[in-house]
Amino acid sequence: MLRETLEGATLVSFIAPHPSHVEVEIRSPNPHEGEIQMAQLEKATYFFGNGKAEGDGSMKELLGGKGAGLAEMTNTDLPVPPGFTITTQACNAYFENGRKMPDSFWDEVFTTLARLEEVTGKGFGGTENPLLVSVRSGAKISMPGMMDTVLNLGLNDETVQGLGSLTGNDRFAWDAYRRFLQMFGNIVLGIPGEKFHGTMDRLKKEVGAKNDTDLEEEYLRTLGAEFKGIIEKETGKPFPHDPKEQLKQAINAVFNSWFGKRAHDYRAHSGIPHDLGTGVNVQTMVYGNMGFDSGTGVAFTRDPATGAKGLYGEYLLNAQGEDVVAGIRTPKEIAQMGGDLPEMYAELLKTAELLERHYRDIQDLEFTIERGKLYMLQTRTGKRTSQAAVRAAVEMVDEGLIDIPEAVRRVDANQIVQLLLPRFDEAAKEEATEAGRLLAKGLNASPGAATGEVWFDADRAEARAGEGGDVLLVRPETNPDDVHGMLVAKGILTARGGATSHAAVVARGLGKPCVAGCEALLIDLEARTMTVGESVVQEGDFLSIDGATGEVFQGKIATINPDIEKELDLLKLLSWADDHRKLQVWANADYPADAQRARAFGAQGIGLCRTEHMFFEEERLPIMREFIVAGDEETRGMALAKLLQFQRSDFEGIFQAMDGLPVIIRLLDPPLHEFLPSYEELSLRVAEIRFLLARNEAGDAEKQELAEKEHLLEQVERLREANPMLGLRGCRLGLMFPALIRMQTRAILEAACKKTSDGCKVHPEIMVPLISTAKELELCRAEIEKEAEVVFQEQGMTVDYKIGTMIEMPRAALTAADVAKHADFFSFGTNDLTQTTYGYSRDDAEGKFLLTYVENGTLENNPFQQLDRKGVGRLMRIAVEEGRETRADLEVGICGEHGGEPSSVAFCHEIGLQYVSCSPFRVPVARLAAAQAALAE
Amino acid sequence: MLRETLEGATLVSFIAPHPSHVEVEIRSPNPHEGEIQMAQLEKATYFFGNGKAEGDGSMKELLGGKGAGLAEMTNTDLPVPPGFTITTQACNAYFENGRKMPDSFWDEVFTTLARLEEVTGKGFGGTENPLLVSVRSGAKISMPGMMDTVLNLGLNDETVQGLGSLTGNDRFAWDAYRRFLQMFGNIVLGIPGEKFHGTMDRLKKEVGAKNDTDLEEEYLRTLGAEFKGIIEKETGKPFPHDPKEQLKQAINAVFNSWFGKRAHDYRAHSGIPHDLGTGVNVQTMVYGNMGFDSGTGVAFTRDPATGAKGLYGEYLLNAQGEDVVAGIRTPKEIAQMGGDLPEMYAELLKTAELLERHYRDIQDLEFTIERGKLYMLQTRTGKRTSQAAVRAAVEMVDEGLIDIPEAVRRVDANQIVQLLLPRFDEAAKEEATEAGRLLAKGLNASPGAATGEVWFDADRAEARAGEGGDVLLVRPETNPDDVHGMLVAKGILTARGGATSHAAVVARGLGKPCVAGCEALLIDLEARTMTVGESVVQEGDFLSIDGATGEVFQGKIATINPDIEKELDLLKLLSWADDHRKLQVWANADYPADAQRARAFGAQGIGLCRTEHMFFEEERLPIMREFIVAGDEETRGMALAKLLQFQRSDFEGIFQAMDGLPVIIRLLDPPLHEFLPSYEELSLRVAEIRFLLARNEAGDAEKQELAEKEHLLEQVERLREANPMLGLRGCRLGLMFPALIRMQTRAILEAACKKTSDGCKVHPEIMVPLISTAKELELCRAEIEKEAEVVFQEQGMTVDYKIGTMIEMPRAALTAADVAKHADFFSFGTNDLTQTTYGYSRDDAEGKFLLTYVENGTLENNPFQQLDRKGVGRLMRIAVEEGRETRADLEVGICGEHGGEPSSVAFCHEIGLQYVSCSPFRVPVARLAAAQAALAE
Repeated sequence: MLRETLEGATLVSFIAPHPSHVEVEIRSPNPHEGEIQMAQLEKATYFFGNGKAEGDGSMKELLGGKGAGLAEMTNTDLPVPPGFTITTQACNAYFENGRKMPDSFWDEVFTTLARLEEVTGKGFGGTENPLLVSVRSGAKISMPGMMDTVLNLGLNDETVQGLGSLTGNDRFAWDAYRRFLQMFGNIVLGIPGEKFHGTMDRLKKEVGAKNDTDLEEEYLRTLGAEFKGIIEKETGKPFPHDPKEQLKQAINAVFNSWFGKRAHDYRAHSGIPHDLGTGVNVQTMVYGNMGFDSGTGVAFTRDPATGAKGLYGEYLLNAQGEDVVAGIRTPKEIAQMGGDLPEMYAELLKTAELLERHYRDIQDLEFTIERGKLYMLQTRTGKRTSQAAVRAAVEMVDEGLIDIPEAVRRVDANQIVQLLLPRFDEAAKEEATEAGRLLAKGLNASPGAATGEVWFDADRAEARAGEGGDVLLVRPETNPDDVHGMLVAKGILTARGGATSHAAVVARGLGKPCVAGCEALLIDLEARTMTVGESVVQEGDFLSIDGATGEVFQGKIATINPDIEKELDLLKLLSWADDHRKLQVWANADYPADAQRARAFGAQGIGLCRTEHMFFEEERLPIMREFIVAGDEETRGMALAKLLQFQRSDFEGIFQAMDGLPVIIRLLDPPLHEFLPSYEELSLRVAEIRFLLARNEAGDAEKQELAEKEHLLEQVERLREANPMLGLRGCRLGLMFPALIRMQTRAILEAACKKTSDGCKVHPEIMVPLISTAKELELCRAEIEKEAEVVFQEQGMTVDYKIGTMIEMPRAALTAADVAKHADFFSFGTNDLTQTTYGYSRDDAEGKFLLTYVENGTLENNPFQQLDRKGVGRLMRIAVEEGRETRADLEVGICGEHGGEPSSVAFCHEIGLQYVSCSPFRVPVARLAAAQAALAE
Repeated sequence: MLRETLEGATLVSFIAPHPSHVEVEIRSPNPHEGEIQMAQLEKATYFFGNGKAEGDGSMKELLGGKGAGLAEMTNTDLPVPPGFTITTQACNAYFENGRKMPDSFWDEVFTTLARLEEVTGKGFGGTENPLLVSVRSGAKISMPGMMDTVLNLGLNDETVQGLGSLTGNDRFAWDAYRRFLQMFGNIVLGIPGEKFHGTMDRLKKEVGAKNDTDLEEEYLRTLGAEFKGIIEKETGKPFPHDPKEQLKQAINAVFNSWFGKRAHDYRAHSGIPHDLGTGVNVQTMVYGNMGFDSGTGVAFTRDPATGAKGLYGEYLLNAQGEDVVAGIRTPKEIAQMGGDLPEMYAELLKTAELLERHYRDIQDLEFTIERGKLYMLQTRTGKRTSQAAVRAAVEMVDEGLIDIPEAVRRVDANQIVQLLLPRFDEAAKEEATEAGRLLAKGLNASPGAATGEVWFDADRAEARAGEGGDVLLVRPETNPDDVHGMLVAKGILTARGGATSHAAVVARGLGKPCVAGCEALLIDLEARTMTVGESVVQEGDFLSIDGATGEVFQGKIATINPDIEKELDLLKLLSWADDHRKLQVWANADYPADAQRARAFGAQGIGLCRTEHMFFEEERLPIMREFIVAGDEETRGMALAKLLQFQRSDFEGIFQAMDGLPVIIRLLDPPLHEFLPSYEELSLRVAEIRFLLARNEAGDAEKQELAEKEHLLEQVERLREANPMLGLRGCRLGLMFPALIRMQTRAILEAACKKTSDGCKVHPEIMVPLISTAKELELCRAEIEKEAEVVFQEQGMTVDYKIGTMIEMPRAALTAADVAKHADFFSFGTNDLTQTTYGYSRDDAEGKFLLTYVENGTLENNPFQQLDRKGVGRLMRIAVEEGRETRADLEVGICGEHGGEPSSVAFCHEIGLQYVSCSPFRVPVARLAAAQAALAE
C-alpha cells in the first residue's frame, strides 16, 4: 500500500523528476515589454510557518491553489514545513516588465527568506545546518504538467557536506546533490535531460551498477562533478554555487514556465485565461532519515477499504521515501508507531483528527518526522472504495462532521453499483493476475463478476446447469437461440459484438455479468475448445470474467455476493437521497423476477418492459417464427393466439410484482428477422446440401432439410435489411401487422383485469416504439383503444391505462408538439436517439471508430455512456418543452441506458423529467444521482 | 379523348351518382337550438342568368366557390344555364334555428324560382316545358365528397310526360325520372342505395338486360313505380310529387350534409372551420339531345399536347353525354362544327376566347347546345403536357394575356424535366401497351426512356456497345463491378434494390434511365435469360424501359431525344425565371461530361462532386481494393499514389468544364466494404472450394483461388457492418486513414494549380462528409490545410479554396454554431439527414413500409422526395440561423436530391440558402422552381 501511495507524492520528490522542460518560445502577451513600472506590486511574498500564515485558503487568486492551501494548513495549526509564496501578481508583473523583476522584488524575497532561516533555525547556504528548499509553481487552477518541482535547492559543494554530516549519510547527501544538479540543469537551465541520463548510464555500465541505488557514494561524487561540467558546457556559465543565485534562477524559470508551450496549450485547450499568472512556492525541505527520532509515513484518517474510523497506514523509522520505493525496507503498520514514537503518534492522531474535521472528509496524509518534529507534507482527500465511501459518509453525519446533503453529495453515484453486484475478492483477483491467469480483455458489457465452467452452446449449458453446475456461456456471438442458455448462466462471454450486441443487452437486462467482443478468443465449436494466444480452454474448464472491467481469467476466482438488505449504510444513504431528489427512479425490467429485484432496489415503477425478450425464450421462439413465416392470416392468427397466453402470464407476474406502481410496457420493437436464424448460416447449409444433391449424395433427410431450409431462407431473405436499425421495426411493424398490436394490447389488458380482480392495483402504460411522425402514434393509439374496448367489454370491467410513446427518433422530438396530442406520456429512448442524432450505429461504431474517437479526444465522452447534452440533449429539451406546451400533464421520463448514469441523470433533472428508468442494479445509482442533481441546484 | 374528359364532368351527371348518403348523426354546434331569431338573414338567394348575376367571383365566402364561379361566368357574358345560389349564411341560420328555416326564407326561394321560370320560359312542375333543376352544395373551400348532386329535380309522374314530348324521347325521360327517384331517395331521403340497385338488378335479370342501357322504356316505367314504392315503404310517406316540396327537401338535405359525418371528418382533418356553412346552387337543367339544333361537346382553348393556339376538342349533334360514355356514337372533331352549326361554332369560338382572356389560361370547356342555344356547363383550367404548358405560357406573354411573372409561376416546374430527357413517343407506348408488351413495373429510379438489347453483364454489355449496339444493362442488382457496363448502357434495369440502390444512384448521376427493384424479373445468369411470368427474354433481345414510370416493355419503342438548344420556348421561360430567382442553381456532377451537361443546362457551379464514383471505375477498383486490403502502410501508400493520378485528371476535367464557377468536391464518403466483393458470394465460393478440398477434388487452381478468396473474405468480414449507413464512412473514414484525406486534397489542389496555370479560373471547395461533431471537422480541416501547404509549396503557387462540410446528421445541424467555426460553407445532405431524422433507411424503408405509409396516408409525402419541413426542415433552419450567427458570410446550400424538387426548392429559398444543387437534368426544374419561390413571396 505504502509503495503505491507514495508514488508521485511529495516524499517521492527525492527521486528525480522526469525531464520535461520545454523551450520557452511563446512570448508574453504584453506589447510594451519593459515599459510598465512595477508600482502596483506592493507585497510580493506571503510567508507561512509556525502556525501562522500571511495568506489563507481563500486567496487562490493571489497565491495560487497550492500557496493558498499551504497557508490554510499552516493557519489550521498543522505542522507544515515553513516557507513562502510569491504572488501571481508578481508573475504577471514579470511579464509586463519584459521578463525581469526589479531589485525591490528580490530584496523582498531575500528578506522573507531570512525570516524563513530564522523560523527554521537553518542557514541558506550554511554548511552546518543548511536550509534547503523546494521551489514549485502553483496557479489558481491546477495545471498538471506545467512545471516540475525543483528540490534540494540550496545545495552546493559546501552545503552538501553539511547535509552529509547532519544526516550521518554522505551517500544520501551526494545523491541529493547530483539530483539537484540534474533538476536544476534540466528544469531551470533547459538542458536536455538526456545529457544527464546518458552520463549516468555510462557510469553505471562502467562500474557494473544495475540500479541507481547501486551507485556508491564515490560515484555519486563523480557524477556531481560531471553534471556541473555539463551545465557549464551547455550554458557557457559555471553552475551557480550561490544558493541565492540558484533561487533567483529557479523563480524566474517558474515564471517563464507560465508561457511555456505546454502550459500555454493546456490553457488554450481548457479555456483558462492566460492572465492568471502562477504563484511560486518556496518551502523548507525536511528529512525523515536524520536518526531514530525521525521517520516518514502515509496514513488515511479512515480505512480506505472499509471506511472504518481510525488511522490506517504505514511508516518507517529513520527513513526517507526512497528507501520505501526502492524496496530496501518493509514499512510497519501505523499503529506500531504508538510504541516507537508515542508522542509523535499522539500528535499525528491529533493532526489527523484536526485535518478530517477541517476538511470534513477522509484525508490521505503524508508526513515526515525530522528529529522529533512532525511535518505534514501533504494532505488530500483520500481515495476510497465504494464501501468505504458510503460508510464514512453515513458515519460522518452521525458524528456531526457533515450534514445529510453533504453525505449524499459526497458518494460517487457510479461507484455504488459495485456494492450490489457479485464482485471478485480484490486480493484473489490480484493474485490471479500475478499468477498470469489473466487471459484476455474484452468489452465491459455488463458489470458483475462470475466464475463458472465454460460451455460453448446454450443446450449444453442448460443441461449442465440443471445438474447444478456453475456455467459460463461462451459463444462467438449470441442470438435469440441462446437465450435459454443465458438465463441459466452465471455470466456470458462473446468473441464478437459491441456494447449493444444481443449478448450485452440481454445480459444487462438480466443483471448478469457479460464480457463481449473479446476478439482475442478463437472459439472452435467443432473441437469444443477456445484458444487465446498459447492457452487452450476445454469445454468444462473454469473461467472467471469481470463484467465491470472486461477481464477474462483462467480458473476460479472467489466472488463476493452482496445483499442490499444487509448494506445498512447504503440503505440509510439512499433513504436520505430519496428525501432530497425530485426525479423518480423507475427500472427497466422484462421479467417478473427483474421487476421484484428492481422494487427491492427501490424502483418506483417499470419504465421499460421490453416485450420482445418474451418472444425469444426457447419454447416461444418457434411460435414467433410460425407467425413470421405464416403464409396466411389464419396461421398467423393461431400463432399470435399461442403467444398471447405466454405474454399474458408474463404481464400478470410483472403487475403482481409492481402492485400499486406504474408499469410501462413497450410494444414489439426489433425487426422480425431477429427472430429467425442467420442468413449466412442458412445459405451456407443450403448451398452444401445442393452440392450434395448435385452429386446424388443427398439422402431423404437432406432433401427434407433442404426443402425446409430453402423456404426459411426465402423468408429470411425477404426480411433482410441493409440497415435493420433504420428498417421495419417498432411501430412500423405494428402498423404493417396491426394484429400484433392487438394481441399485445389484449395480453396487457387481460392481465391487468385479472390482477385487478385479484386485488392488485395495476397501472399499465402501453408504449409505442420508434415513432417518427405524430400520425404513426395516432394510428397505433386508435388500434390499441379499439382492442381495449373489446377486452373491457369481454371482461366486464375496465382498468385505467395510459398510451404513450418512445421519443427515440430526432423527428419525434422535433415534432413533439404534434406527437403529444396523441400521447399520455413520453419516454426518451436515448440509445436510439443517440444513434440517429450522431448517425452512429452503436455496434459498428464502438468497434470501428468510436473508442478511438474517445481515446484521441475527438469525442470527449462516449455518447452512448454519457448523454450528449449539446445534440441529443437539445432534442430532449425541445421535446419536453413543446410536448408540455401541448399537454401540460404529459408524463416524461427516460428509459435509455443513460437513465442509470449520474451525469445523464443530472441532465434529466435539469430539463424537468418526472423519472429516470434504468436497469435494476443501477436503481440505487440513479436514486443517489437524482438527489445529487437536486442538491446541486 | 372525349370519353375520358367527360368522365366525372357535368355532362356525365346524367348518369346516376354513387350512393353515398351517410346518416346525419352529428349535431350542429349551436347549444341554443331554436332560440336564435333569423333577423340577420337579409338576402338568402342570389340569382344568376341571362348575362347578369347578383353575385360575383369575389363572393366565395357568402356564395361558396361554385356559386361565386357561376355568378362570375354569368357576369362574363358566358351563356350559363340560369339559376340561383342560396347563401352560406342561410345554411348557418338553418343550424342556429334548430335545423329549420322560417317561412320567409322559403318565400324568398320560391320568388327567386319564379324569376328563374321567367328567364327560362319554363314552368316548375309544368307539363309542357317543365323547368328541371340540379341542386348542389358548394362551400367556400372545395370539399370533395361532401354531398352528391341531385339532378332532374322537378320531375314527377306528370312532368316526365312533358320531358318526353319535349325531347321526343320517352325512354330518355323515363330514364331521367327513375334516376331522379333514385338520387332523391338515396341522397335526400337517406334510403340505402342498395334498395334501388337491388330492384334494378332483379329487373335486368328478369328481362335479360345486360346493361342499364338495354332496359327498354316500359321497364323504366316499371322501375319508376317500384322506386316510388320503395320510397313510401322506407320513409312511411309517399314520394313528393310536388316539385316545390322536392326542392325544399333537397335544400334541407344539402344543409344537413354540412354536418354529415363525412363532411365533418373532412373538415376536422383538413382544419376547415365548421362555421363556414355551405351554399346551395339551384340551376336549370339543359339537354343536348333535343334535335339537330342541339348537341354537346368538350374543347380546349389550346392544344393540350402541343400548346398550339386554337380550339381543340370533340362534339356530337343531338346527343347527351351518356351516349358518348356508352360508346354508342363516335364524336366528331370540333372544327367540323363550323359546317354543322356555323353560328353556334362562332359563338363557341368567341366564348372560348372570352374565357381564356377572362381566366388568362388554357380552358377545358364543356358545353351543351339546347335548341340553338349554347350553354357553358363548365370551364376549368385545362390539363396539358409539359410542352404545351411551356409553349402556352410563353405565347400568352407575347399575346399580352399574362405577364412574365405569371408565365413563370404557371408552368409546373416538375413537369419540365420531361422536356429534357429521352422519352417514348406517347402513341408508340400506348400501342405497345395495347399489344400486351408491357412486361412488368419496377421502381422509377431515374427518369428518361431507353430501348436496347438486353445484356446480363457489364463486360458483354461493354463489348456489344463497342460494336455499336444499343445496350440495356440488366442485372439482379448492380455493384461497383458493373459501372463500366452502366457507362455504356442506354439504360439500366435491376430486379432488386430501391431508389437509392447503387444502380439508381449511379444512373441518376449519369442521367441514364433506370428501373430498379423490378421484382417480377427472374434473371437466370447461367442460362442468360430473364423470365417474367410466361415471357422469356433472351440475351440480345430488345427491351424498352421508362425510367419515369418504372415500366418495362418487350421490344423497341420509338424514343424522342430532346435537345435543350432547340427548346426555344423553354429557354425563354428559363431566362425569365433566372431574372426573378434569388437562389443560385448548382449541379451534382461526378464526371467532366456531367459537369459540361450541367453547365449547358444552366448550372452556376458544382454543388457535389462525389469522389467515390471515381474509384468504382473498372481500372481503378482493383487499386482501391489494394488500398483496402493492404497489410502495411507502404502498400497502402503505393495504392493511394496510383489513385492520385486518376483523381487528379478527373478534377482537371471538371475544373476545365466549370471554368470560372465554384466546384464542391466531397471527400470519400461510402464505407470501404462497398469497394469489395459481396460477403455472401465470397463465403459461398469459399465454402464450395473447401467442400471440394475435403474430398480431394480441388485442383491447384482452386487451392490458389481459395487462398486468395479466404484472405479477401477476411477483409470483407473485418469491414462488415450491421448498419453500414451509420458506420465507418464519411469523415470517420478520413480520420481513421488520414492518408486518404491527404491524397484527395493533393489531387484536388494539384489539379487546381495545373488548371490555373492553363488559364482557367478555378474555385475548388473541399467538402467533409458526415460530421456529427465540430471536432471532426476541425481535425479534417487541419489535415487538409497541412497537405495544402505542402502542395502549394511544391507547386510554387497557391489557389484560393474553401473548406466546408455536409450537414447531414441531426447533430451537425443542432451544433451548427460550433461546426461553423471550422467551416467556410455548409451543404445540406438531405438524403442522409432525412434518413437519420426519421430513422428510415431509404433502401429498406421504401420496399418495406414507406410506400405503404404514403399510400394509406400515414405519411403525406415520401420525405425522400419532398423535403419534410417540420422535422428535417427545422434542423436545416437551426443550422442556417446558428451557423450564420457564428459566421455571417457562411455559404449555405443543399446537395441532397431534394435540391431538384420544386416544393423543397421553395423551402430552401424561404430559409435563405444561397444555392440548391441537383442532378444536371433537374437544373432547369430548379431554376424555374427557384423563380416561383421568389415570386411567391
